[in-house]
Amino acid sequence: MHWSGVITMTTDFGHKGPFAAVMRGVILSRNPNAQVIDLAHDIPPQWPPEAGFWISRAYMYFPRGSIHLAIVDPGVGTERDILVAEYDGHVFIAPDNGLLAPLLDKADEPKVWCLDIDRLASLNLAQPSDTFHGRDIFAPVAAELAAGRLPLAALGNSVNEWTPGWLDEPEISPGKVAGTIITVDAFGNLFSNIDKSMIAEFREPVAHIAGHQIPTLTTYGRAKPGDLLALINSFGVVEIAKSEGSAATGIGSERGAPLIMTDGYST
Amino acid sequence: MHWSGVITMTTDFGHKGPFAAVMRGVILSRNPNAQVIDLAHDIPPQWPPEAGFWISRAYMYFPRGSIHLAIVDPGVGTERDILVAEYDGHVFIAPDNGLLAPLLDKADEPKVWCLDIDRLASLNLAQPSDTFHGRDIFAPVAAELAAGRLPLAALGNSVNEWTPGWLDEPEISPGKVAGTIITVDAFGNLFSNIDKSMIAEFREPVAHIAGHQIPTLTTYGRAKPGDLLALINSFGVVEIAKSEGSAATGIGSERGAPLIMTDGYST
Amino acid sequence: MHWSGVITMTTDFGHKGPFAAVMRGVILSRNPNAQVIDLAHDIPPQWPPEAGFWISRAYMYFPRGSIHLAIVDPGVGTERDILVAEYDGHVFIAPDNGLLAPLLDKADEPKVWCLDIDRLASLNLAQPSDTFHGRDIFAPVAAELAAGRLPLAALGNSVNEWTPGWLDEPEISPGKVAGTIITVDAFGNLFSNIDKSMIAEFREPVAHIAGHQIPTLTTYGRAKPGDLLALINSFGVVEIAKSEGSAATGIGSERGAPLIMTDGYST
Repeated sequence: MHWSGVITMTTDFGHKGPFAAVMRGVILSRNPNAQVIDLAHDIPPQWPPEAGFWISRAYMYFPRGSIHLAIVDPGVGTERDILVAEYDGHVFIAPDNGLLAPLLDKADEPKVWCLDIDRLASLNLAQPSDTFHGRDIFAPVAAELAAGRLPLAALGNSVNEWTPGWLDEPEISPGKVAGTIITVDAFGNLFSNIDKSMIAEFREPVAHIAGHQIPTLTTYGRAKPGDLLALINSFGVVEIAKSEGSAATGIGSERGAPLIMTDGYST
Repeated sequence: MHWSGVITMTTDFGHKGPFAAVMRGVILSRNPNAQVIDLAHDIPPQWPPEAGFWISRAYMYFPRGSIHLAIVDPGVGTERDILVAEYDGHVFIAPDNGLLAPLLDKADEPKVWCLDIDRLASLNLAQPSDTFHGRDIFAPVAAELAAGRLPLAALGNSVNEWTPGWLDEPEISPGKVAGTIITVDAFGNLFSNIDKSMIAEFREPVAHIAGHQIPTLTTYGRAKPGDLLALINSFGVVEIAKSEGSAATGIGSERGAPLIMTDGYST
Repeated sequence: MHWSGVITMTTDFGHKGPFAAVMRGVILSRNPNAQVIDLAHDIPPQWPPEAGFWISRAYMYFPRGSIHLAIVDPGVGTERDILVAEYDGHVFIAPDNGLLAPLLDKADEPKVWCLDIDRLASLNLAQPSDTFHGRDIFAPVAAELAAGRLPLAALGNSVNEWTPGWLDEPEISPGKVAGTIITVDAFGNLFSNIDKSMIAEFREPVAHIAGHQIPTLTTYGRAKPGDLLALINSFGVVEIAKSEGSAATGIGSERGAPLIMTDGYST
């Protein structure tokens, strides 16, 4: 592994308090050359699927050799495991609660280890708190990895299984794909888990959500102001938007809403 | 140009999701020594004037040789142009939608180019998405510029015109200046587009907003708790504040509200 | 002092506008090698106690030789002083308004100076604005300190007193500690100022807040979903939480609420 020195953080900490900052401090205390990047801190509290969605769709924009910490961890301090995965030149560390399933289920031969704290005596970790493993375990482990002082295989036993994801994959039938809205951005655009490959053969992809039938266009400015549109967005999934407005507000949908794509309009 | 390595980002992405983070990742993938700074991500969705206001009032606090990316871009993926401007030792990149007018209209001989993607084959850009040019164009171009691998003049044709700003400049008459509130900060202070130079000759500057007449003082602590005050703020514009409170809440005004300064009180 | 190059910022600026960004720009303009970290920007406007709480509980997670700027400063531009303190290998700079009292009152022989701008002619500071000393004084002083170009003792006169903290310390009596909720995190967990040492001898610590009696457990996952719990959190204070929910919403309490810990349940 050639480490880039980049460490990203995806959490449900929000933007209040010093929680991400102290993780940064712990990392820099061990590895002053690390570059720590906030990927997203607005994951809904204790809802791992959105963290897994973003990690799996965003990691490839960071330098190869980056480490991605994902901390949405309702089970912190209980017996839940921590997974470390290597895939496509990147490393991912997250609680084993289904968070990494969106990435690992589609990965071609990922290497996965179950973190074993007892093997890390050389790191001189303080006794971890029961409530903030991000600071007490994830951060120091990432700092040491990025510094090249800790081989991945030393972290624990290799595993081939992980907790399943919390959301079903989209259901695919001829001319129809049924998926789910995963997240809403600051504009009110709705991001689904329907990958562009699932509708690649459709001649006229139409989105069905909350009673609307919505055409698929290439970008926001191709719709009239105020009109709804579907598009294949820059992360490769179907997105529902409203030109010069908020689709979320306009149609009253949010995370978890069902979205169906059909080939052509229904009558 | 002597590049500082600093790249700032001003956007309407909000603080949700990984959008600014993936721009950072793209920049660091090409230029590991770049320093990427979040200038502001809370520009109202698709409202360029506030981005232009902040860029034009804040760029000088960054090292000379910095690059300022401003991405408030309702026309992304349509035929709108992207401008690159060099002024006062700094470089600015933004869609040509009026965003840069507050800076360029007052700039003494800025150099401005219209970005021509077709000339940038040497950058090996991936095919840009139709919806996220921040990641696919702005970020890689900034990374290459800051690395000193791309001359500004190679980016496109020189231009002398740009899309006008969305807001009128303040209207100036003897003893009176009529301007607009541009933004509201976290304290509820109202920032206007009335520059201190416009009222420099006033003996007794009085602010008129939402039916109030408000005296001009030097700082918040000079008013009694709960009293409204006007002041020349640290960015050189007239600001309306409420001592130990929120002017925005107190007088019910926000972005876009008219503000008039007179020399002396009206009777 | 061996400087780490790390400078943290704790403010009430919120996440709107470029205020923290321009401080970063000023620091990097003088000291390109500084690493500037946002500790927290969501301190309630003009309420120093929470800034002091977080600084005193979080500084030790940053590298020794770090500088911690805390700017919650309702008196900016008036005659209030600025304090510089050295303690436990870290440096703290804040207005003398009680902010640093939670740290300094418990510190063993801290060194404290009162900043004297007139002695800093060598820094070529611009004339400070009356409203943004963070940018005009705190940032350049921190940049020069972190660069090793300015001895601490050159900053001003040594002092032994500071403005008292705004909140009383918890009241301790046999089997009972009466404290206050200082902050609420993004999950709705309530953080108090009751240190774990104050209840270390309790056999059965019970929290009393808003009419509830709440048992003390080790972590969130030890309570049934929906149940309230108290715990000693990762910053060493008593925290009130709700398993898989928000304690703040659940019991209707927030900053400033009284919290009493007793040894055993009341009848």
